[in-house]
Parts: sequence; structure tokens; C-alpha cells
Amino acid sequence: MESDCTPRFLASDNTSGICPEALDYLLRANASDDLAYGNDAWTQKAADRFRRFFDYDCDVFFVFNGTAANSLTLASMGQSYHSVICHELAHIETDECGGPEFFSNGAKLLTCSGADGKLTPEGIESLVTRRRDIHYPKPRTVSLTQATEVGTVYTRDELMAIRAMADKHGLHVHMDGARFANACASLEATPAELTWQVGVDALCFSGTKNGLPMGEAVVFFNHALAEDFDYRCKQAGQLASKMRFIAAPWLGLLESGAWLRNAEHANGMARYLAEGFAALPGAELMFPAQANSVFVTLPVAVLEELRQRGWTFYTFIGAGGARFVCAWNTTQALLDRLLDDARDALSAA
Amino acid sequence: MESDCTPRFLASDNTSGICPEALDYLLRANASDDLAYGNDAWTQKAADRFRRFFDYDCDVFFVFNGTAANSLTLASMGQSYHSVICHELAHIETDECGGPEFFSNGAKLLTCSGADGKLTPEGIESLVTRRRDIHYPKPRTVSLTQATEVGTVYTRDELMAIRAMADKHGLHVHMDGARFANACASLEATPAELTWQVGVDALCFSGTKNGLPMGEAVVFFNHALAEDFDYRCKQAGQLASKMRFIAAPWLGLLESGAWLRNAEHANGMARYLAEGFAALPGAELMFPAQANSVFVTLPVAVLEELRQRGWTFYTFIGAGGARFVCAWNTTQALLDRLLDDARDALSAA
Amino acid sequence: MESDCTPRFLASDNTSGICPEALDYLLRANASDDLAYGNDAWTQKAADRFRRFFDYDCDVFFVFNGTAANSLTLASMGQSYHSVICHELAHIETDECGGPEFFSNGAKLLTCSGADGKLTPEGIESLVTRRRDIHYPKPRTVSLTQATEVGTVYTRDELMAIRAMADKHGLHVHMDGARFANACASLEATPAELTWQVGVDALCFSGTKNGLPMGEAVVFFNHALAEDFDYRCKQAGQLASKMRFIAAPWLGLLESGAWLRNAEHANGMARYLAEGFAALPGAELMFPAQANSVFVTLPVAVLEELRQRGWTFYTFIGAGGARFVCAWNTTQALLDRLLDDARDALSAA
Amino acid sequence: MESDCTPRFLASDNTSGICPEALDYLLRANASDDLAYGNDAWTQKAADRFRRFFDYDCDVFFVFNGTAANSLTLASMGQSYHSVICHELAHIETDECGGPEFFSNGAKLLTCSGADGKLTPEGIESLVTRRRDIHYPKPRTVSLTQATEVGTVYTRDELMAIRAMADKHGLHVHMDGARFANACASLEATPAELTWQVGVDALCFSGTKNGLPMGEAVVFFNHALAEDFDYRCKQAGQLASKMRFIAAPWLGLLESGAWLRNAEHANGMARYLAEGFAALPGAELMFPAQANSVFVTLPVAVLEELRQRGWTFYTFIGAGGARFVCAWNTTQALLDRLLDDARDALSAA
Repeated sequence: MESDCTPRFLASDNTSGICPEALDYLLRANASDDLAYGNDAWTQKAADRFRRFFDYDCDVFFVFNGTAANSLTLASMGQSYHSVICHELAHIETDECGGPEFFSNGAKLLTCSGADGKLTPEGIESLVTRRRDIHYPKPRTVSLTQATEVGTVYTRDELMAIRAMADKHGLHVHMDGARFANACASLEATPAELTWQVGVDALCFSGTKNGLPMGEAVVFFNHALAEDFDYRCKQAGQLASKMRFIAAPWLGLLESGAWLRNAEHANGMARYLAEGFAALPGAELMFPAQANSVFVTLPVAVLEELRQRGWTFYTFIGAGGARFVCAWNTTQALLDRLLDDARDALSAA
Repeated sequence: MESDCTPRFLASDNTSGICPEALDYLLRANASDDLAYGNDAWTQKAADRFRRFFDYDCDVFFVFNGTAANSLTLASMGQSYHSVICHELAHIETDECGGPEFFSNGAKLLTCSGADGKLTPEGIESLVTRRRDIHYPKPRTVSLTQATEVGTVYTRDELMAIRAMADKHGLHVHMDGARFANACASLEATPAELTWQVGVDALCFSGTKNGLPMGEAVVFFNHALAEDFDYRCKQAGQLASKMRFIAAPWLGLLESGAWLRNAEHANGMARYLAEGFAALPGAELMFPAQANSVFVTLPVAVLEELRQRGWTFYTFIGAGGARFVCAWNTTQALLDRLLDDARDALSAA
Repeated sequence: MESDCTPRFLASDNTSGICPEALDYLLRANASDDLAYGNDAWTQKAADRFRRFFDYDCDVFFVFNGTAANSLTLASMGQSYHSVICHELAHIETDECGGPEFFSNGAKLLTCSGADGKLTPEGIESLVTRRRDIHYPKPRTVSLTQATEVGTVYTRDELMAIRAMADKHGLHVHMDGARFANACASLEATPAELTWQVGVDALCFSGTKNGLPMGEAVVFFNHALAEDFDYRCKQAGQLASKMRFIAAPWLGLLESGAWLRNAEHANGMARYLAEGFAALPGAELMFPAQANSVFVTLPVAVLEELRQRGWTFYTFIGAGGARFVCAWNTTQALLDRLLDDARDALSAA
Repeated sequence: MESDCTPRFLASDNTSGICPEALDYLLRANASDDLAYGNDAWTQKAADRFRRFFDYDCDVFFVFNGTAANSLTLASMGQSYHSVICHELAHIETDECGGPEFFSNGAKLLTCSGADGKLTPEGIESLVTRRRDIHYPKPRTVSLTQATEVGTVYTRDELMAIRAMADKHGLHVHMDGARFANACASLEATPAELTWQVGVDALCFSGTKNGLPMGEAVVFFNHALAEDFDYRCKQAGQLASKMRFIAAPWLGLLESGAWLRNAEHANGMARYLAEGFAALPGAELMFPAQANSVFVTLPVAVLEELRQRGWTFYTFIGAGGARFVCAWNTTQALLDRLLDDARDALSAA
């Protein structure tokens, strides 16, 4: 068994650090003092840049992490006695420790299945129509994840069909964009084409997974939902006093184009890894690798051996199997070594 | 009226940036990938270092900001039908937009006055004893701020007297340490001497005001209160995925001693400024400048003139008057210019 | 000291039982089975009757008690980061154990003083304007109590002035009508004249204090606020399954006119008691007895002696002193005995 | 098709009114004034009687309805980041509109299936062990319904096995006793034998379904969980001011023995109805009728015909099919007519 000190982190794109462009802007923001709570120049610039980015006069708020972004946004879309429809593998259901329920003071998540980690209009409608009495929370929002938890992407047509169903039943559409940049890269679509142009009311856009140290942007295309959202963030402990250290790195990502380069690179690495696994007898891809995650089934003994060799990956996220996630700094060399180790382990198994 | 581009930020210690020691460690933490959610090496090291720092086997958690730190800690000390006793000028009452009420699902803050921004045992007792029926929230916690919102500090004797009163009525003691380092510097006391040795159950220690980009440490000396606090943080959107970017800068502050140097510097600057104001006819100090804040009453026209000249400061925080706050990077030259401008304005008034 | 077994309950109008008219309808509703959850005939009839009562197409909901009625209604008027302006003696502030904060998930109550237990437009405006930053909850609602906690009533002019101030600052107006019937009787005004005609958005009308075993009506004149309020009640444990046992007694009060007779009687008894106290040297009325409560200052020894003789009354509610409350079944004989006992005790003191 | 005005309510046991014994005590409690908020003589007597009833020094609280009883009790057993394990058909999951999530400020319900509407130790363990990370709410409580939502009962052995599993994983055991009396009758077991003797921490005992107008008893056998529960009820709008009108009818049920007679009668009627359906070709019983509910599958056309003939019943509660519930006042004559109508409809189908 080989032994060296190179990190073997493929558990998530949040094991990577700060990308150079984001760091550059963070350091620039540190060059002089500035006003707190978002009244600084960087925050204003970053918010304006987001409006250019989306080609839309959207409302932009910066919060610390994804659980807060999703939960606060969902809370703004309904009341405690409403419900949120999401895929059974959605992060808000499986990995936020009840955050959406907490911030909304009790809203229920209603889950449905769907191929490739995707909600369908039919699935949504079945949840809306099976109960319509006051003894059960009233559906008010559809939450979808783009790219999905299993590394696939919704096409624009799929998004428009979901919007149509949402309209039919008076639902808001929330997009968990933990890997939104990867979806744009995968679909070769503009941010506008994947959001307001297909009827998304609000997007939670993750900077952390895209190369920031931390920080997410909540982007409202539906202005009514953004009313007093600044108060909501403040009360919920999500207003950074030195906000420029979130906003400036975001600006770095957007101005430099790193947001897209990082995503393209990560997606490319995932495709490479997926192809590698596909060529390995005994390994089986579970989903098309359309973004930066690869889900593969491997014998238990092989997973164990990979862990022994220092590889980190999850097996409980998404749909089971092993999940490997590529990031802005994942190298082909690292993936080659993973594939080598997997090949070894498979032949030994 | 002079005109230059030097920033004149004295509104708060959060207008300052990242101090060199914290930045150094942040960059080191960025040198390689690491596990997420606090399973990285930096977080472990920082937590251990905190235990040495306090000379106590305390439980340490990192969260994003002060509102969250205070609110989550208070929530761990009681239920929604309990109340928290605090000074009428306490940040939790006046500047957290109902955060403590939100995170606790409705706990009420009961306020009392007290000289120099400080709670007294008598004030606490009067709030506990005036109502003892189920129609009013039951007091469960005392929250005090060290250093206080008006730039004073509680002595160890005062803290012990508060602890004794808390024991008499079965109350927990929470310390909002937004400027805890400044208090240690002011009192020339060790962190242990100002916390567990005087009966503090939990401390919310601000790194942001001490030189970090963001990040607070919640430190429990009462282990029972820390039970499942990691879940509480996660659900409430306060678990950083790339936590090393909070933990490592903290480690930088502690290992380098910058935590104390920064505080001493800021306190010294505040003393300098206070002495300067004291010598100005027409300016009157409102409180002894024991930490890094200076509160001074000045004629309205003078305040207006200072604002015209670009100075930023608050007049609604604490007890009115103008508040000037010094930080780790405040220079004597800046304060001299403020005093010059104040002198000019006073003589013109 | 006299000794007999006659009850001496003047602590509150909720020590009285069920008035005959309400009981009659309760028994009628028990004559046969009926649908649950308000789908019964009685609930429909009672709601319709309320619409006639108010001469308005209002939305009517029945809940169990006053804390729930007030808290749920206030929750429907704002979000957790909003605040509610009320008098410092308001029941929602002093006697609901944080209920409004709980149901709203953290909204803060902002209190102001005001003569005779009444809010003033100036008091409201001062609370709205003293803080306008996101660090403090944003005022969204004015809550007033009619009749007030100290037994006075708002005139129509006063109510209209409050509405005008509310309009100026975009606030909703909530009326805690724990003793709304007493206010109508006192002012010789119709229910319409004291609610929607003076701009009240929603009224919490207490049946319990008016002669029911339990049950309050929440009446929305502002339809938008009533959206999905049925879900809100259900989730919050305020949907009675056998709702006809709340609705039918209400119908009894309204159809028989007992609602007004009961209030007139109670008010008359309070006037009688107030006049009696006014004639006693050593007793001093604290407020004009405009509804069914009498507040009087008496020497401590006298209060103690009255308690010894079996009289129940509160001294911590409202503004201190002793509060005596008359109800639909209070007799003049009982009040005469109270006055006799007070006279005895005063002369002995 | 026959046509008369006799009610045909079999939708739930809450379509029935107040039983004579409960009404008798309600009227007695109305004979004179008494102290409010549970300080009256009736409430004290009823609570004491409950302690005799359970042969245990339990803590007893009266609340208005079942959603509140269950939700408040579950809230006392855990925090917002904890989870509650229950059967997928549990009322708390399917019919309380998110009440448990609301009162707990976000606790998640984790459901599992199980034959005859019953949780199994294995099902509980699988939910506890499948996730043990902080990204998912931590299981803290098992909630079971006795009798179940589908009219079956847990045996004492089953309850003890669940308690053993709860002990293994540090879980509290909550019993939703919406039809607890029916379970006692069915199993010919004492209240003690089905609660604290098998390790139940707290029981929510429904009076409404047993013959009261409204009102549930929350009974804690685990004293620690009852700490400050009176404050919890008050804040949550569940403290009746005229509490004697809940407590006295409860006393009537217990002192007269009606609690058991009512349950035995209802169970007997359900058995009669079940046997009747069993004899009808085309009707199929879904579960053994061990308590007072009968679930039967019938052709859609037959259900429709029954509805046309005025029968009320649910088809969406529990496991589908048609649910008929018998109550303390259900007559054999009524059931005979239902069976006749069903027979007619089946032969016509």
C-alpha cells in the first residue's frame, strides 16, 4: 500500500481552500478600514456586479453559509404552517439538521422521489393534491437543487415545466445553488437563463464551494420576497460586521471570471473521473456526471481499501454508493491515483 | 475644513481589518486542503489552545458572529418561557434585532439600569423577585457584557457578587465578551480569572473585534450547557464548512499573543483619546475609559461638524453622546487629528 | 371578623362561571352529534352572526383563550424581526408569559407609558422614530387594549388618532378586546364604531370574561391578514375538535343580547364600587372606573385585613394598588360587604 | 334510498357531544365562582384523582386539545435539533399541521412503517442508527399512539420491548393517548400497567374523545420532564382561565367510572361493526378492530353511495380505506343501518 502525505480529499468541494482570485480581493479589502455591516464600498460593488451578472435588478444579500441561505430564503417564502416540496435527496431535507424547520418556526418539508435526483412536475403535483385540508401543512414553495445532489443538472425545459406547475398551484420556486456555477458551466447557460428567465424566485448561490473561504449570496428575483430580508438576516445572526471579507472575494470571483473557470475545471475533472471509473470492471456509475460530483458503486471491500489508503469520500450523501467531488483545485494527477488505487483494490477483491 | 482621503473610522472596532497574525494563519490554513466542518487539524489545535488559554477543560465552538454566539448560548441556558436578565444597554437588548428572542423561540429579556453600564446584584434580585407567577417568564440567566457597552469593566469582586446572586436564585451566568480581550488587558487579569474562576458558565469571545475577519468562540465552562451544542450550531446555520478559516486565525491570535497586544493597544489609544477630550473645554467624558471605547458629550453643532469632516462614530449606541472606538490598528496620529478637529469645532461653536 | 362561606371573588371577571344564555346554547349544541373542527352548523351560524354584529363581512375564527388569540393575531401581522408597540401595562407585555414572542418566533414588544393606561399617537411615534436601523426590530403593529388594563376606555377620537399615526408609519392596529363588550357598553357605541370604523385591523374579542366557559373570537376586518389563519390556528393547537361548544355559547351571547347586558351590569357594579370607595377616607381611586375594573389605593394593613377576610383581588396587575373586577354575576350585596369590610379595616388602621 | 334526519356521524369520536357524567360535573362546577388558572378546588381534586387513577405521584396538566398536548409534551422532551421517531401514520405526523415542529421550534419527525400501525423496536433502531452525524437531527424521543391510528393496540410486551430499545439509545417515550381509555378497555389493563409500569415518560390522555366537550390531560411519570411545564403551557396559550370547566368534567369521567364504560361501549360497537363488515362480501377489514375504529376497504362506488346516504367517514386518515369510529353514544341501531346501507350498495355495485 502506497504511503505519502499528499492529501486525498474528494469528500466535498468544501475541503478545498480559497482560490487565488478570491484571495486577491480579500487581501485588497484588507488594505484599509471600511464601514461595517455592508455599508462598505466592496459590498456595494459586489451587489451591483451581481445585478450585471444576472442581467436583472435583483436584491442581493450575503450570508455566511448554505444552511442559513437556504433556510432564511425558504422562511421568507412561507409561514410556519406551510410546507416546502423538495426531492427526497435534497440537502435541505437530509443535511441541514432541521435548519429549514428551525428558521421557519416549523414548516414541514414534503419529499418526493424522482430520477437522477430531480423533481418532476408530476411529483410536485401529487404532493400538492393528496392533501388539501387544514390538518396538514399547505404547500407554498418548491425547492430544487441545481446542480442536483447527485451531480446531474436540470435543463431549462425541465425548469420551465416546474415553474408552470408551481404557477398552477401558487407555489414559489427556490433554487438551492450550492453548485449553481457548475450547472451554468455544464449547461453552457448564462446565470439569467437558469434563474429568472425560467421563473426562479430566489437563488441561494454558494461561493464557498466555488472558491471562497465562506459566504453565500441570496439573490431575489421576486422583489416582494426580499422585503425586510436584511432584518431577517440580522436577527438570525447572518449579518457579518466586516462584511467586506465576504463581499470582496465574491467580487473577485465574478470580475475575474474565476466563478466559471473554477466550475468548468471541477466539472471537467469529474467527467474525467467518471470516464475512468466507467472503464473499471466492478465499478458502476450511478448517475451521469453532469457537474462536479461522481457517484459510483464499488464493492464494500474496495471502499474500505480506499479509505485505508487515505481517500476521503462520503457514502451516506445523496443516493448511497461512493461520492467523489471535484473542486477548483482538483488535479488530474490526484484522480489518476484514485483510479489506480481503485483498480488495485478491485483486482484484489 | 481639511480634506484628505485618510479614513476616519472610529465608529466601531469592526471597521478595522484583519491583523497580521490572524492573516498569517489564515494564509497558512489555505496552503493545503483539509477536512470540512471542523474536522480539520486547525480547528482541533485552536480548540486545544483555548483550553490552555483558559487553563480549563472547556468546550469550545466556533460560530460566525456575535449575535449568533450570544443568542445560541442564551438559548442553551433556558427555554422559551424563561427570561434573561441584562443591563438596559446590553447589546443583546439594543442591537441584535431580537436575535436572542428568535433563537430561544421567545425568551424575554428583562432589563435593569445600573451605573457605568453594569448590572448589580440588587438590580438582578429586584427583577427576579418582583414577579414569581406563571404569567410572566421565569428568570433563568444573567447576561453581562465584559467590557461593558460603555467602555467600563466589571472587577472580579463585582463578578463574584453577581455569581453569588445568581446562585441564590438558580440563574446561569452568560458573559458577552465582545471586548473580552480588552477587559483582560484593562484589569491585567488572566482569562481564567475573569471567567470560570468567578463563576461564568459560558463566554462568547469575539475574535472579529480583536483582529479576525470574522468568527467568535463560544466557550462553555459548564459542561452540561454544552450538550449537543454542535447540533444547535449546525441547525442554526452557524457551522462553517471551511471552518479552518475561522479557527486558524483564532490560533494566530492566541499563539502569537496578538489577542492581548491588540487589546492593550486599543485600550491605550482609548485612554489617550479620553485624556485628550478631558482637556477640551466643552467636551465631557461620560464614563471612565477602561477599555477601548470613549463616550463623550459634545454640542450638537460639533458632532455635525465632525461628521462633515468625515469622522464616523455612533451616537445611538450605549448611553447617547458620541462613541469613539479604538481598535488594534488605531493610530495616535488619527486621534490627534480627531482632537484637533474637535477643538476647532468647539471653538467655532 | 365575620365568617361565612359566600365566595368573595373580585380578582378577575374570569372567576365567574357560565352565564345562563351561554349555558343554554351549550346544552342545545349537545343535543345531537355534529361535525368536528368547525364544520358544524353552530360554528357557521355563530360566524355569520358575528358578521351581522359588526355590520361587516369580517373573517371570524374561534380559539381557546386570550393569550392564544392575541399572540396568533399579532403573529399574523408581522414577522419575527418586527416589533409590536404597546402600553407598558398591556396584558401582552405583562401577563402572557412571552406568548406573543413565542408565537411570532421572536418579535419584540416595545412599550411606552401613557396616562390612564392608554397609548398616545406621540408615544407610538417616538418608538417608531427613535431607531430606524436593522439592528433593532422594525415596528409593524400597534396593539391597544379596549377597555384598557386599568379600566378606562379609548374614545373613538383617540382611536382614530392612533389609526392616523399607524397609517403614517405603515403599522397594523390590533385591538385586545379582553373587555371589548365592557367598552361598547361604557361608550354606548356599536361594535362597528369601535373597530373597523376607526381602522382596527383585527380584534381579539373575549367571550370568557363576558360569560362563556372559555373561548375567544378573532375577528379580522383586514382580509389580507386572515389569509391561511385557519392553518395557523390548527398548527398552534387552537382548533377545537368539538368547536360547537365554543361557537354555540358565543351565539347565545350574541343572539340573546347577553353580551351587552352582561357588560352593562359589570360596568354598573364597578361604578357602584368606585363610588363607594371614593366615599371612604383613606381609599383613593387610581383611575376613572369606565369599564368593569376598579383600581384603588389602600393602606397595606387594610389590604392584608381584606385578604384575611377572604377577599381575592390582585395587587400586581396593571398599575399597582388593589384591583377589583366586576363580572356579569357580581351583586351589589357583595360589593356592599366589601365596602363594609374596607371601612372597618380603614377605621382600625 | 332512505331519507331521514338521524345523524350518521361515524367520521370520528369527536362528533359526539358531552357524556352525562362529564356534563353533570361541568354544571356543578358552574354552581359558584372559583379561582382562575387552575387555583380552583376542581382542578386540585381532578389532579389528585389522576394520581389515584395511575397509582403514581405523577404531574398532571390540563390543556385544550390534542395537538397542543402532544406538541408541548414532545417539546419538553427535546430541543429543536432533536428528532422524534414515530409511525408513518402517527397523528403527530399526518394530522397536526406541523404542530410538533412549531412548538419545538423545528424538531423533525422521523417516520417508519410497521404492521398494524405499530412501531417496532427494529424500526426505531434503524432510524437511530442510519445517521449519527450533526448534519441530521439527533433522535431523542419515541412517540407511539395507544390505541393506534388504525384501531389496534400495543400489548404490554410490545411496550416493554420499545422501552428497552429506547433505553438502549437514550430516548424518551411519549404516548399519544388520544384513545388511551379504549386501549385500557381493550387490553383489560389498568392505566398504570399501560404507562409508567412499561416505561412511558409522559402520556397525553384525551378527554375530548372520551366524552368531554374539550380538554386533555398531560401526565408526566418522569418528573424531570415536567419542570416548568406550567410556564410552557401558559406561554403557548394553553392555560385556561376558567380551568375548572376542563378539570371538573374530567373528574366526572374518573369518579363515575364513565371513562371506562364509555370506552368499553365504543370498543364493543366497533367490534360489532367489524363483525358486520366481515360478513359482507366485498367488504374487507384492514386491521383487527381492537379499539373503537374500524377500517374497511369497500369499492369506490359503495363509498360514494354511503356518502350520498348521509354517512360521514374519513378515507384519508390512517391507511386509506374507510374509517368508521364509534363513540360513547354510538348505537347498535345506527350501525345496523350503516351495514344495511353498505349491503345494499355492495349488491348494487
